[in-house]
Amino acid sequence: MLKDQIRRGRLGAERGCGVSRFLSSMEADRWIAEADVLVDMAHLLMLRRQGIVGEEHARAIMEVLVGLHDDGLPEEIFDDRFEDVHAGIEAYLIDRLGEETGGRIHAGRSRNDEVAACIRIRAREEVLRLMGSVNRLREVLVTLSAGHTATVMPGFTHLQHAQPTTLAHHLLAYEGALARDYARLIMAFARVNESPLGAAAFASTGFPLDRDYTAELLGFDRLVENSMDAVSSRDFLLEVLSACAILSATASRLASDLILWSSSLAGFVTLSDEYCSTSSIMPQKKNPDTLEILRAKSGTAAGSLTAALAIMRGLPMSYNRDLQEATPHLWQGLSAAGDGIPLLAEALATATFHPERMAEEAGKGFSTATGLADLLVQDLGLPFRTAHTIVGKAVRAGKIDLPTLEKAGKESFGISLSGLGLSQEKVQAALDVRSMVDARTVTGGPAPATVKKALRGRKEELKRDRAETVSLEAGLAEARVRLLSEARGLLP
Amino acid sequence: MLKDQIRRGRLGAERGCGVSRFLSSMEADRWIAEADVLVDMAHLLMLRRQGIVGEEHARAIMEVLVGLHDDGLPEEIFDDRFEDVHAGIEAYLIDRLGEETGGRIHAGRSRNDEVAACIRIRAREEVLRLMGSVNRLREVLVTLSAGHTATVMPGFTHLQHAQPTTLAHHLLAYEGALARDYARLIMAFARVNESPLGAAAFASTGFPLDRDYTAELLGFDRLVENSMDAVSSRDFLLEVLSACAILSATASRLASDLILWSSSLAGFVTLSDEYCSTSSIMPQKKNPDTLEILRAKSGTAAGSLTAALAIMRGLPMSYNRDLQEATPHLWQGLSAAGDGIPLLAEALATATFHPERMAEEAGKGFSTATGLADLLVQDLGLPFRTAHTIVGKAVRAGKIDLPTLEKAGKESFGISLSGLGLSQEKVQAALDVRSMVDARTVTGGPAPATVKKALRGRKEELKRDRAETVSLEAGLAEARVRLLSEARGLLP
Amino acid sequence: MLKDQIRRGRLGAERGCGVSRFLSSMEADRWIAEADVLVDMAHLLMLRRQGIVGEEHARAIMEVLVGLHDDGLPEEIFDDRFEDVHAGIEAYLIDRLGEETGGRIHAGRSRNDEVAACIRIRAREEVLRLMGSVNRLREVLVTLSAGHTATVMPGFTHLQHAQPTTLAHHLLAYEGALARDYARLIMAFARVNESPLGAAAFASTGFPLDRDYTAELLGFDRLVENSMDAVSSRDFLLEVLSACAILSATASRLASDLILWSSSLAGFVTLSDEYCSTSSIMPQKKNPDTLEILRAKSGTAAGSLTAALAIMRGLPMSYNRDLQEATPHLWQGLSAAGDGIPLLAEALATATFHPERMAEEAGKGFSTATGLADLLVQDLGLPFRTAHTIVGKAVRAGKIDLPTLEKAGKESFGISLSGLGLSQEKVQAALDVRSMVDARTVTGGPAPATVKKALRGRKEELKRDRAETVSLEAGLAEARVRLLSEARGLLP
Amino acid sequence: MLKDQIRRGRLGAERGCGVSRFLSSMEADRWIAEADVLVDMAHLLMLRRQGIVGEEHARAIMEVLVGLHDDGLPEEIFDDRFEDVHAGIEAYLIDRLGEETGGRIHAGRSRNDEVAACIRIRAREEVLRLMGSVNRLREVLVTLSAGHTATVMPGFTHLQHAQPTTLAHHLLAYEGALARDYARLIMAFARVNESPLGAAAFASTGFPLDRDYTAELLGFDRLVENSMDAVSSRDFLLEVLSACAILSATASRLASDLILWSSSLAGFVTLSDEYCSTSSIMPQKKNPDTLEILRAKSGTAAGSLTAALAIMRGLPMSYNRDLQEATPHLWQGLSAAGDGIPLLAEALATATFHPERMAEEAGKGFSTATGLADLLVQDLGLPFRTAHTIVGKAVRAGKIDLPTLEKAGKESFGISLSGLGLSQEKVQAALDVRSMVDARTVTGGPAPATVKKALRGRKEELKRDRAETVSLEAGLAEARVRLLSEARGLLP
Repeated sequence: MLKDQIRRGRLGAERGCGVSRFLSSMEADRWIAEADVLVDMAHLLMLRRQGIVGEEHARAIMEVLVGLHDDGLPEEIFDDRFEDVHAGIEAYLIDRLGEETGGRIHAGRSRNDEVAACIRIRAREEVLRLMGSVNRLREVLVTLSAGHTATVMPGFTHLQHAQPTTLAHHLLAYEGALARDYARLIMAFARVNESPLGAAAFASTGFPLDRDYTAELLGFDRLVENSMDAVSSRDFLLEVLSACAILSATASRLASDLILWSSSLAGFVTLSDEYCSTSSIMPQKKNPDTLEILRAKSGTAAGSLTAALAIMRGLPMSYNRDLQEATPHLWQGLSAAGDGIPLLAEALATATFHPERMAEEAGKGFSTATGLADLLVQDLGLPFRTAHTIVGKAVRAGKIDLPTLEKAGKESFGISLSGLGLSQEKVQAALDVRSMVDARTVTGGPAPATVKKALRGRKEELKRDRAETVSLEAGLAEARVRLLSEARGLLP
Repeated sequence: MLKDQIRRGRLGAERGCGVSRFLSSMEADRWIAEADVLVDMAHLLMLRRQGIVGEEHARAIMEVLVGLHDDGLPEEIFDDRFEDVHAGIEAYLIDRLGEETGGRIHAGRSRNDEVAACIRIRAREEVLRLMGSVNRLREVLVTLSAGHTATVMPGFTHLQHAQPTTLAHHLLAYEGALARDYARLIMAFARVNESPLGAAAFASTGFPLDRDYTAELLGFDRLVENSMDAVSSRDFLLEVLSACAILSATASRLASDLILWSSSLAGFVTLSDEYCSTSSIMPQKKNPDTLEILRAKSGTAAGSLTAALAIMRGLPMSYNRDLQEATPHLWQGLSAAGDGIPLLAEALATATFHPERMAEEAGKGFSTATGLADLLVQDLGLPFRTAHTIVGKAVRAGKIDLPTLEKAGKESFGISLSGLGLSQEKVQAALDVRSMVDARTVTGGPAPATVKKALRGRKEELKRDRAETVSLEAGLAEARVRLLSEARGLLP
Repeated sequence: MLKDQIRRGRLGAERGCGVSRFLSSMEADRWIAEADVLVDMAHLLMLRRQGIVGEEHARAIMEVLVGLHDDGLPEEIFDDRFEDVHAGIEAYLIDRLGEETGGRIHAGRSRNDEVAACIRIRAREEVLRLMGSVNRLREVLVTLSAGHTATVMPGFTHLQHAQPTTLAHHLLAYEGALARDYARLIMAFARVNESPLGAAAFASTGFPLDRDYTAELLGFDRLVENSMDAVSSRDFLLEVLSACAILSATASRLASDLILWSSSLAGFVTLSDEYCSTSSIMPQKKNPDTLEILRAKSGTAAGSLTAALAIMRGLPMSYNRDLQEATPHLWQGLSAAGDGIPLLAEALATATFHPERMAEEAGKGFSTATGLADLLVQDLGLPFRTAHTIVGKAVRAGKIDLPTLEKAGKESFGISLSGLGLSQEKVQAALDVRSMVDARTVTGGPAPATVKKALRGRKEELKRDRAETVSLEAGLAEARVRLLSEARGLLP
Repeated sequence: MLKDQIRRGRLGAERGCGVSRFLSSMEADRWIAEADVLVDMAHLLMLRRQGIVGEEHARAIMEVLVGLHDDGLPEEIFDDRFEDVHAGIEAYLIDRLGEETGGRIHAGRSRNDEVAACIRIRAREEVLRLMGSVNRLREVLVTLSAGHTATVMPGFTHLQHAQPTTLAHHLLAYEGALARDYARLIMAFARVNESPLGAAAFASTGFPLDRDYTAELLGFDRLVENSMDAVSSRDFLLEVLSACAILSATASRLASDLILWSSSLAGFVTLSDEYCSTSSIMPQKKNPDTLEILRAKSGTAAGSLTAALAIMRGLPMSYNRDLQEATPHLWQGLSAAGDGIPLLAEALATATFHPERMAEEAGKGFSTATGLADLLVQDLGLPFRTAHTIVGKAVRAGKIDLPTLEKAGKESFGISLSGLGLSQEKVQAALDVRSMVDARTVTGGPAPATVKKALRGRKEELKRDRAETVSLEAGLAEARVRLLSEARGLLP
């Protein structure tokens, strides 16, 4: 059994396993175990180059580290008698190599800077993966939209039939929101990908470290310069969680729409069985469970952010162990926001839409009444508020036709609409669903031609964003190749 | 490999493992797996008694259930291809007994009522455990207080020296708060320990179930009567999480005090090494990590509550899969609030307090100035506000003695304090720390005799609360014995 | 202009109005201004009885206080140059009576215990009002239910047609939840209605106060005994906010249901115009805005709780100014939860339900398939899982009739259902909506007779709860009469 | 009294004032009232240019709008019988000009796009102001640091003396964090400053609007293109709230440090009286209330974000009235984060630091032990873990001198440190506070020369950020001048 090497000097009293388990971050540290090996490699390469650890010791340690990288970390490292994976790995090195060699890795650093580096390395990967998922979902929305620019459907406000729109127009609303979610993620990435290494406990160290070198080896874009800031701040974590919570809120709204659309009441879409569950008791049920869980996950994402904010606020400087408790919320929030996005994309891509049902509903609930009010303004020169009132009164009377409108106009304003030139034909034409949609050619509106134009812009932006993501991924991959090559270069 | 029995009728398309994992509650279901076996037993006993499942089938199923209870659930049941542990157990029964027998357990129920029953069973155990922990912590506070009624220390407001008090008085403030935390937990227990069984999907069932019988078998105090309410509501979960978050906030404040008291700046207490960590880089460090993590956990508890509230709000009736996502927050919140309480109790019980350091600080910062102001009112008949101003001016001038006070009285109010009878001796006496504490004999105040009287009341209330907890535990234990005995009674 | 009397002793440097405004709680203190006058009266009566303030001074001060009570507080008291309303009132007393008299009110107390008393006095009123609103809503639900025990409607799970139920059964699910909300509020009331008065800054005082007397005068049920606990704890506030957030979540779910039911897609209910808005642009719109805002308020209630928890956690003892920032969240949370409940009650009471539309939808989506599966178990002796699968396959094939079922039974299990005695008539009968509902006679189920029985129980519990609320209100009213009478008794 | 013009068509039943107040956003709309006049102006200029409203009508309406801008909105517009300020202004126009003219302003728009535009206009101003405050605080930190590069002080981890650092190094940690807060705010600004105008209810309009023109007139950087996205999304609001909550968490940590530093226990700093309060009972108290409230505000900021997230998540498209309830949280969050920043800056700028007290504490608690461990590695060639253990054992024995170290080395590792060349002089030198600080020359470390170098970088970045803020402010100011000039140009 590996032995803890850190407590033995200063502290007596062995800890009971209740305390050990309470203190240990081991469970959450599985997220960063692989990153920790990379951080160890980079630190060691630097220690050697700066002459802090000698050639031979460095080679021996690196051999074990490369083994951990290639074969994975053995389970004994994750024993929760260790406070964390850092202690576990150091104990492993000392167990394998003896303290004379293994005891040298921790020169010039603390677990404070080490763990911050590990969290950032794993977090940047997760953020990048999430950016990819978001872009895939955007692609599905764009592709679907391209096929449905003429598919009319009811647009709702307040869950009431409001005005007709098209499926393409509706889906592109989500694509627009997701593009901003993407933008927030890439901004968060910039704040994540900074190196705290070399800050040690918070006051840096007397050893002649080269912080730029470890940062470069690990693919960081720059340093978190001030060493106290480097170990004590977790705003990067809060920013990622914020971006996740907002993205998750966007996704949950799309899920809500799809849940409604796939209900028997609406019948606008049929989801693939793959994304549905049935009931253990009701044999007929086909439930959109994937979407419901995805919707609920946005509550989880909000909770993760809340927890992390509550933990961080009011903490005095510099490092406090409270910071450890913030980290699992990062992983929880990333999972909550991220796990469902690919499923949402595929659920959409494989869904069957029912244009005839949508068309059937599109004109219900006097949904084109606004078009008629507009006509009264444009054709008859009425003030909009007057036109709005007259049409509203007709609806209240239960019928939109010339006589009802005429009556409303007379009673409320002493105006004869037919006298001003309104005919039943014009009323009918104004109330037509498809021509109302076709007339909405204002930038960003639902008219098919307008949506097609918008689609061209969306595709281009998406292409740009995907290229950007790929380039960041490539940068990190290259850095890793370089690091491993330098690490292996040390071996005989 | 066990086979899923629930999807095969209604749904086609196999799910990819991404979807399965996303939908499955298996990981969190480990919390309720044992409870589910008990629920199955009770349901089965009732189905048999009501003639819904025949003797022979019932006996065969019970034999497997007793095996699961006695030997624990095999790992194959927790495969996350199953949506949940309920599906896993049913599949296991069918695998062992064939569908002709194993397929009979689910008559007259749904996973909706089943899972609600399981959550409640586990949650009530956790709440009871937490009540026990809270009482243990109260006991430590009471015991410590009994030994420190005369240990003077500085009381702080705004982290500034305010007035002297005693360690006993300070600790009892926390005991008072914890007594209310206990009261909230037992109230939550009442709402948790109600049976939803028999509600089926939400509309109950056509089978002639006996809900009272299953409730009694499982130790529930009463039914959640309305069957839709029974499966759709999670306010019991939110109430437990609220009680946890508030308790955790109380505990975090005590932790903050202890962290400050154990700092070198204060030096009021030395914690046992067992509850401390050192630094991987700074050899001299002894850090109160247990208390810091405990403090941070209150952020996690708040986050769990937030998440569950965000998930539940706005959900239409009745069951939605979103509810599944609320449950893990219950376990997280219970752990966050509960895991540290026993450690906090023992950290306090094993700590070494330093009365001399506390005494040294007790009189600093003009902390007895209020006593002097009171004297000016009581002895000289000044209005309190006048006395307050005069003493305040002296403090501002940097010195509380007769000449400075005299000057302040004259300049501000044209009063001669010495003329009114104030002497330097009286000033000195009024500023004495110990006599100031001794004079605070108002109910709830820090005077040793007053605290001793308060202690008698606290001990009695604590005794009553402990008896209550023990009685609830005994009630549940008895119900379990009875259930298992009826279950085994069915076997040959 | 009134003058601040508190700073003048100890502190120099006048504050700029930016600082004053930032520090002042004046805006929120409007909630507690009236309570503060009552607290002053009680404190003064006690000071006089204990001989701390002489007869003449006491009478003069009381005269002003009675004036403030009868005429309301003049606006000059709310100047935000004062840190709080307590300072404003004291300045007003001194301005009216001179410091020799007005400067005597604050003997033996601090704003710390004063403000805690004021918050509790106002909060208990708000909690009581909320309890009354909840009971009114329960009454509306019970009354509506009594008229709709036979009104069938579709019950949804996962927003999919699940099983038929009745409107009464559905509404009573909410009544059940609201009864628990009521229970939480009355428990919170118990923790609110405790007196902190006499705790002074946190260490009580050397003046011979009678805490029991002020508590009784102000209608408090008991003391918060420990004086540090009395001024530093805000768990009562957190508990009220929790009860509010949970109640608000319940109410938001009812709002969601009504929003859906009043949509054109469902058409189950028409809300009174009074609770609806129209659109400024779409003349036909009638939107359930009241319900939408009520739904959203549950987010606000959750936010208020989160904020207060985040503020309180980790605070060292005893009083810190941070506590001031927690209080406005109490008022915000109470408003968020409470303002909409009476409107929800009236919106429900005045709504027009459409039984024919509900009936039309009740049988859609194969919603009675479970009844058929039950029949296969009860009549043919099939295991439930087998029956569930056979009916599921028929639904998947698109049709539930004997031939389809027969085919499913043969293909999947080699069983002939007709051979076992199933006929098309039995299938038809099993699928009938009304008889399925009538068969759900299990306790808590939707069968009309069962619901009628449940209604009797609900009415009785509601009656009991209303009586309890009324009795608490009466107790507070009596205490206030007594206090005012003692106060006026002091006047000439 | 102005009359509501919007409900009169479609809806009957007058609303009681309870409903009106519940529905109305008037109170919060004071934040956007001025912005609404600007939006009206821009919309009107565009309607006229597009020929939708004739010259004469446009001129008359503009005259009233210019009056509202110049003289402020009269109180009658804020009557909460109106649902919002938009309805109030339209009613005012109709009241002044008659419906024939005033009834024309709302052509081609809805309150949905109007309110989104107003919120964005006000929010961008608030965000800009906040950016300015953050930069001012950074400037204070930089300036203070420049004067304190050689002021040694104890650095804490876990609130325990950890290692010596300097005041400059400590303060710059906060400056670094605030620079990232600034970066988040400017990113949020980009997402805020987009125009939703022209989206109407969500489906744009049949009127030939020119969205680019109104966007330009109002100083927006670009459109939110998709019209449904434009009115339904509030991610910009959530992003601002996130940036505020994170900034507020940063600021609360600085406040916590200052509260501790100004306590009698530490005595590192004396705050100006202006930012402090005293006690109403304790005459000697000088409390850092401004900092405490600022610390608590971070809880409020977190609560505002939570509330808004909870409200937005799961909402189906497109506009729902729930959105109205999200807006006040934006203002609350902005105030919570922003109001205290200028005060924090000035409290810091006017504080008196006590270098001698800091120096006195800097070397306590064996805070330079790490330097000694480093020496054992660098001079004697020991592995770091061995050196760490030896020094730790000496601390545990209570003394760091050669004999104690020698004993520890022998007992634990069989090493003679003196044999390896360690002398008491070297031990002493390694433990010297100032030389330890001077040796921390790693990038970002506390050595005075290193901090001076860092300061140059910080000043430059701050200069760049200030220029950027100024340029954005200038852009908005210019747009406003242009808009008003075009508006006035319409008048005779």
